[in-house]
Amino acid sequence: MMSVIVAPTGTHLTIASEHSTQRFHAIWLRDNAGDPETRSAANGQRLISLRDIPADTSISSAELKGQTLVVNFAPESKEVSYDLDWLAAHAYDGEEAQQRGWMPSKVETWGSGLMGNVPTGDFAELSQNDDALRQWLGLIGKFGFGKVVNGPIEDGALFKLVDLFGHVRETNYGRHFEVRTEVNPTNLAYTGLGLQAHTDNPYRDPVPTVQVLYCLESSAAGGENMVVDGFAAAQRLRDENEAYFNVLADHCARFEYAGEADVCLTSRRPMIELAPDGELIGVRFNNRSLAAVTDVPFDQMATYYAAYRRLGEIIDDTAMEVTFRLNPGEAFIVDNTRVLHARKGYSGEGTRWLQGCYADKDGLRSTYDALCRKPDLKAAE
Amino acid sequence: MMSVIVAPTGTHLTIASEHSTQRFHAIWLRDNAGDPETRSAANGQRLISLRDIPADTSISSAELKGQTLVVNFAPESKEVSYDLDWLAAHAYDGEEAQQRGWMPSKVETWGSGLMGNVPTGDFAELSQNDDALRQWLGLIGKFGFGKVVNGPIEDGALFKLVDLFGHVRETNYGRHFEVRTEVNPTNLAYTGLGLQAHTDNPYRDPVPTVQVLYCLESSAAGGENMVVDGFAAAQRLRDENEAYFNVLADHCARFEYAGEADVCLTSRRPMIELAPDGELIGVRFNNRSLAAVTDVPFDQMATYYAAYRRLGEIIDDTAMEVTFRLNPGEAFIVDNTRVLHARKGYSGEGTRWLQGCYADKDGLRSTYDALCRKPDLKAAE
Repeated sequence: MMSVIVAPTGTHLTIASEHSTQRFHAIWLRDNAGDPETRSAANGQRLISLRDIPADTSISSAELKGQTLVVNFAPESKEVSYDLDWLAAHAYDGEEAQQRGWMPSKVETWGSGLMGNVPTGDFAELSQNDDALRQWLGLIGKFGFGKVVNGPIEDGALFKLVDLFGHVRETNYGRHFEVRTEVNPTNLAYTGLGLQAHTDNPYRDPVPTVQVLYCLESSAAGGENMVVDGFAAAQRLRDENEAYFNVLADHCARFEYAGEADVCLTSRRPMIELAPDGELIGVRFNNRSLAAVTDVPFDQMATYYAAYRRLGEIIDDTAMEVTFRLNPGEAFIVDNTRVLHARKGYSGEGTRWLQGCYADKDGLRSTYDALCRKPDLKAAE
Repeated sequence: MMSVIVAPTGTHLTIASEHSTQRFHAIWLRDNAGDPETRSAANGQRLISLRDIPADTSISSAELKGQTLVVNFAPESKEVSYDLDWLAAHAYDGEEAQQRGWMPSKVETWGSGLMGNVPTGDFAELSQNDDALRQWLGLIGKFGFGKVVNGPIEDGALFKLVDLFGHVRETNYGRHFEVRTEVNPTNLAYTGLGLQAHTDNPYRDPVPTVQVLYCLESSAAGGENMVVDGFAAAQRLRDENEAYFNVLADHCARFEYAGEADVCLTSRRPMIELAPDGELIGVRFNNRSLAAVTDVPFDQMATYYAAYRRLGEIIDDTAMEVTFRLNPGEAFIVDNTRVLHARKGYSGEGTRWLQGCYADKDGLRSTYDALCRKPDLKAAE
């Protein structure tokens, strides 16, 4: 049995059931009203500003009518209805503070155990079947990376992959970049050396949040791709040594790429990025482009370097890595704010040709969420 | 007279002059070595990882030779030279904690007093003269916005403007979007209503960090553009009421745009974004796309709304705003992480046609920094 009680002052109300008690403020309810004067029925955007809502807004009355809460606001004398399920989903009462480095429940960390179970989509199926696309994008949201197989083997095929979920982020490297051996390389990624697992372009701000690497030729020995869950690494660091986690989260590193005449990219961001409430929202790790770190006080610098070293050791631990080989027509995409990627060294014999590009995670998440909202797909679950 | 002293343990050294004393750790110096085995002479990227540097690295000796510090590291028995000016520029000893909401000295806040002095570039001059481009980009870095005049009046001209400093960020709105009156608008920006000053697309993560609005037709009355310095607004809020500033910085807001069938963009970011050390690095303010805020505890929500209201009042204060009119061939660009923009209402008579697009600030800063690095431009200063 649900009940609603308005506080004597009218500043908030309380919805109580056997299982929970949730309080909502008058101003919060009024600002989140869904009536057609407050929000556009066409696009859901709010039509008014907070300045249009009286500062002394209070609840003059509230009552439950089935699955609806009906609230009357003073001084506007405005009646607004709320769906109880919507209120339950947006309740903000009683949230407990979480441990620094927490993650939403939909995110799942992983190690080498995921090796046999890499989220993989078939290119044609992803292109033609919304449900397959939704499932694959959901796994990318959960694990931070995914593979695609059976894609076209042609110059620029990676753009067709990006078209499935978002938009290319063009940079000074172009709309895409070629990854193969070059003489006199301007960037180490173009040589045959193995690379330590890293996130791409931490010297960019914002970093590209999605990276796509698409294989077109692969007859050279070696050159396997490897990914590491940066969130798993950061949480392992925290669980081993909280001071190490904190020193990397509480101070900005600096990154730089200035290796071309017209390029001088610099950033000042932490290696472990947290939201104000401690949610783990990003990892930046790239030995090649780390610039001199100058935002750590002298008395913290030794700890900072010890923590950076330990994070690198965790990242290098083979128990953390998932390895796979890309054959022509195969690609992988990573959430570049979370998952580090690396390449094993490969020999100069034969060829290895990948094309890479960047995209953004918000577009990927939007595509996924919009697919989840589609009635026919919902019904299929 | 400069001197260098190595600590007995070899963990750090001290460079002392009459004016300053700077300590540098062995591990920091070793990691930041610029010798050709450590850093690529071609592109400046680091060739080794921290794992390649012994954890017990210490300084076995150090001496000054003119403008150079020569350090010998154990156990590698490696000698590395450092330029004293470089060390002075990258010193990290003795930095004092700054007030929350601090900004780098190159950033300058402003209010309506900037009205007669809007950073303005001539399109042809920006296109042909590196020094003019550098100066204009420098002012955009300082103030967070700038105008361009005498540009081409043609469909897509805004891309020519973006080409001067960076790359278009394509989104679900396309590579660019049209801003003119539409019947049955799916987004309020396309109507003739005035809009409260806002940052664009806070429901995107990362947000587009640069926005360009380019005018092609403007015969309708009204429709002036207005910009407000969000950093100035946030600092004013802090100086008026620190608790208000903190509550907006310490809790994530939520933003959403889900007004089209295939789009469901959501984000969870604070209205006032700080770096871990309190640097003010972003403002998100958009009444239309603010979703239900659910990450503020009940006992903080009233303060949160009071702070949000006050921030809005500050933003609405005419003392904060710079207003200008865009004529055909004129454009403005804003740092969308800092500067809010608005449009005054305009009448339906005549036409008003703008094209807008997004780009990224890192590209803009890179272009600026690379121009500053050019020897011929440096000499001109």
